[in-house]
Amino acid sequence: MKKNVLIIGAGGVAQVVAHKCAQNNDRLGDIHIASRTLSKCEAIIASVHAKSAMKQDGVLQAHQVDAMDTAAVTELIESTGAEIVINVGSAFVNMTVLDACIETGAAYIDTAIHEVPDKICETPPWYANYEWKKRDLCTEKGITAILGAGFDPGVVNAFARFAIDEFMDEVTSIDIVDINAGSHGKYFATNFDPEINFREFTGTVYSWQNGAWQENKMFEVGHEWDLPVVGKQKAYMSGHDEVQSLAVNYPQADVRFWMGFGDHYINVFTVLQNLGLLSEQPVTTAEGQEVIPLKVVKACLPDPSSLAPNYTGKTCIGDLVKGTKDGQPVEVFVYNVADHKEAYEEVGSQGISYTAGVPPVAAALLVADGTWDSKTMKNVEELDPKPFFTILDDIGLPTRVRQGDKDQAWNA
Amino acid sequence: MKKNVLIIGAGGVAQVVAHKCAQNNDRLGDIHIASRTLSKCEAIIASVHAKSAMKQDGVLQAHQVDAMDTAAVTELIESTGAEIVINVGSAFVNMTVLDACIETGAAYIDTAIHEVPDKICETPPWYANYEWKKRDLCTEKGITAILGAGFDPGVVNAFARFAIDEFMDEVTSIDIVDINAGSHGKYFATNFDPEINFREFTGTVYSWQNGAWQENKMFEVGHEWDLPVVGKQKAYMSGHDEVQSLAVNYPQADVRFWMGFGDHYINVFTVLQNLGLLSEQPVTTAEGQEVIPLKVVKACLPDPSSLAPNYTGKTCIGDLVKGTKDGQPVEVFVYNVADHKEAYEEVGSQGISYTAGVPPVAAALLVADGTWDSKTMKNVEELDPKPFFTILDDIGLPTRVRQGDKDQAWNA
Repeated sequence: MKKNVLIIGAGGVAQVVAHKCAQNNDRLGDIHIASRTLSKCEAIIASVHAKSAMKQDGVLQAHQVDAMDTAAVTELIESTGAEIVINVGSAFVNMTVLDACIETGAAYIDTAIHEVPDKICETPPWYANYEWKKRDLCTEKGITAILGAGFDPGVVNAFARFAIDEFMDEVTSIDIVDINAGSHGKYFATNFDPEINFREFTGTVYSWQNGAWQENKMFEVGHEWDLPVVGKQKAYMSGHDEVQSLAVNYPQADVRFWMGFGDHYINVFTVLQNLGLLSEQPVTTAEGQEVIPLKVVKACLPDPSSLAPNYTGKTCIGDLVKGTKDGQPVEVFVYNVADHKEAYEEVGSQGISYTAGVPPVAAALLVADGTWDSKTMKNVEELDPKPFFTILDDIGLPTRVRQGDKDQAWNA
Repeated sequence: MKKNVLIIGAGGVAQVVAHKCAQNNDRLGDIHIASRTLSKCEAIIASVHAKSAMKQDGVLQAHQVDAMDTAAVTELIESTGAEIVINVGSAFVNMTVLDACIETGAAYIDTAIHEVPDKICETPPWYANYEWKKRDLCTEKGITAILGAGFDPGVVNAFARFAIDEFMDEVTSIDIVDINAGSHGKYFATNFDPEINFREFTGTVYSWQNGAWQENKMFEVGHEWDLPVVGKQKAYMSGHDEVQSLAVNYPQADVRFWMGFGDHYINVFTVLQNLGLLSEQPVTTAEGQEVIPLKVVKACLPDPSSLAPNYTGKTCIGDLVKGTKDGQPVEVFVYNVADHKEAYEEVGSQGISYTAGVPPVAAALLVADGTWDSKTMKNVEELDPKPFFTILDDIGLPTRVRQGDKDQAWNA
């Protein structure tokens, strides 16, 4: 049993996490939000109060912290008495925040793999480069660390585990498909931090096929998927965090990730990348100023959180899992559909932030009540998916299963 | 009679100017090159010597100068004894260099209109915002200032004057068409300073039609032209310096400028502009760094001078001038065709720099021998075009005239 939550980060996902923690503060206790910019934390707190989201009276407090500084995070965990840390800050701070949890005994939950600013696309599996190196230490010290507990990675890892456990004896392939069929009405925008968004697609596309890591280029392999609610959608094989752990846990299966892109996104991305504007390496202007182009592109693009008020349409994210059952081929699609406008009305964020921010709160609730308080480091597919789905059903992200002509709730 | 030339600037156009001055140093005297970066001047001097371009032994010297500093330019003019200044530096330094010429009595020649870094597309006619305000002072002090003596503006102004004087009683329209049918083999590059290149197309497109300034957006008005050598080419109505003076000198005529663009250029430009990456106004990155996006785009693009070695194909720039002669409609196309590879072989620059850099040297030769030493400020269409064409024929940019089925040298 653990309580009191410290949220690291104050972007669109953190806003969802804060709202959902507030809605469940009877079970989670005190809620603290910390980021480099105090005013962003305060704005989130104001938004929680504006929606009267606190289930019961309690602590909801903003803090300034440099999350790259383990000592500062350690001190904050101690001074707030937080026993659960939800890290939804930049992907660059995972290791410093994890170290602070190991130091203090707090449980650690994040939603994306650790990244180093000047490196893109390291050797797979990426988790082995940073996070997994701390697994033995977590076990030794009894630290609960749940890696990648957003939607993808996160819920999709649980979808895979569930499909395999429930429907098959052997798994042969896991295809994760992420389609945003919504519209934000801008010329161009990314749905989360442009820097992290573009970094996903500028490196080698790693997939796990035929028992080995395969390399492709971005937009090299495309496929049209026919999905519930959003219909036929073109998606492209992309590198993604969950492939990096699912391939290790299910080495016998092909594991691929597919991200939906419209032609317009691909065109803008291609122009920017070919010009070198997505580079994380500095260039020097004629005036002698050293600048990282990607950071300038980020500064020019709309703030993802500004998209929410006018965002309409739905997302569909799911896993098509294939295998055999009693020697016969079997195929199942486990998925969720979320709605941008509904998300905005509930928590003031668009659907992409919503799908990323709700699951780590579900994970926190499972840590709080002991169900997922594993005292070691786990990726989501290594944990029981059913209590996770039960909470997600309850707090906004219901899981459905399509098999042949049947399409129903996971527990129907 | 004037002699000794000071070249301001050390880019691709300055390189052409230096080579051409060196090839004619028997008539021009000492040659000095000055820019912010001494090493760029020295590289140009090395390239002149590598081609043994000096017609006779003489002075060819590099200097460091901040051309935004009138006192520094004044001192340099005095210490070098230059009586002719060819300003092919950034468009931001025109007024400071002109002031230094007025101070010292040196003749001033430039190739582009003055610009202020944080302003794009001011009220037409643009020359009236800066340069023409100094005309009375030039007259009073007997200073020769020739504005816009590159190719366009410059030679195309002389083409218009020539077509009107030789072929018609009344002019009704002047359409200047600039087509680069060459290929540099890169994904994307601009043919001269990207900052200046993009600034040309991010503002309002001003044209002079029906006796008034008309406003359009870039790429709003397109037309396919059928031109000598390069054939059928799509071009778009654009704002350009020469429209700003020709409209004042020939207010009875429609005056338009058309720049050729391929679909790929338009796509890249449109993406960059819509994202705000062509803005001359600073943005602040998440890390708090203040950056001008356009300067970062410039830093990412290929240096225009790097394109020269592999540039192939031809340019065609000319004026379609329409009017009446003895009451009958008359139409004539006065033009030049230049070749990228030939330009590189002669002076180490590509054709765009060549067409821009040769004409100011022709103007300097006409100032040196007194023909164009007007002791006041002039745009090129206010000067006799024939001696200009004669020199241009001789030094690399022959003028041709197409009328109906006839296509021949201007003086055939």
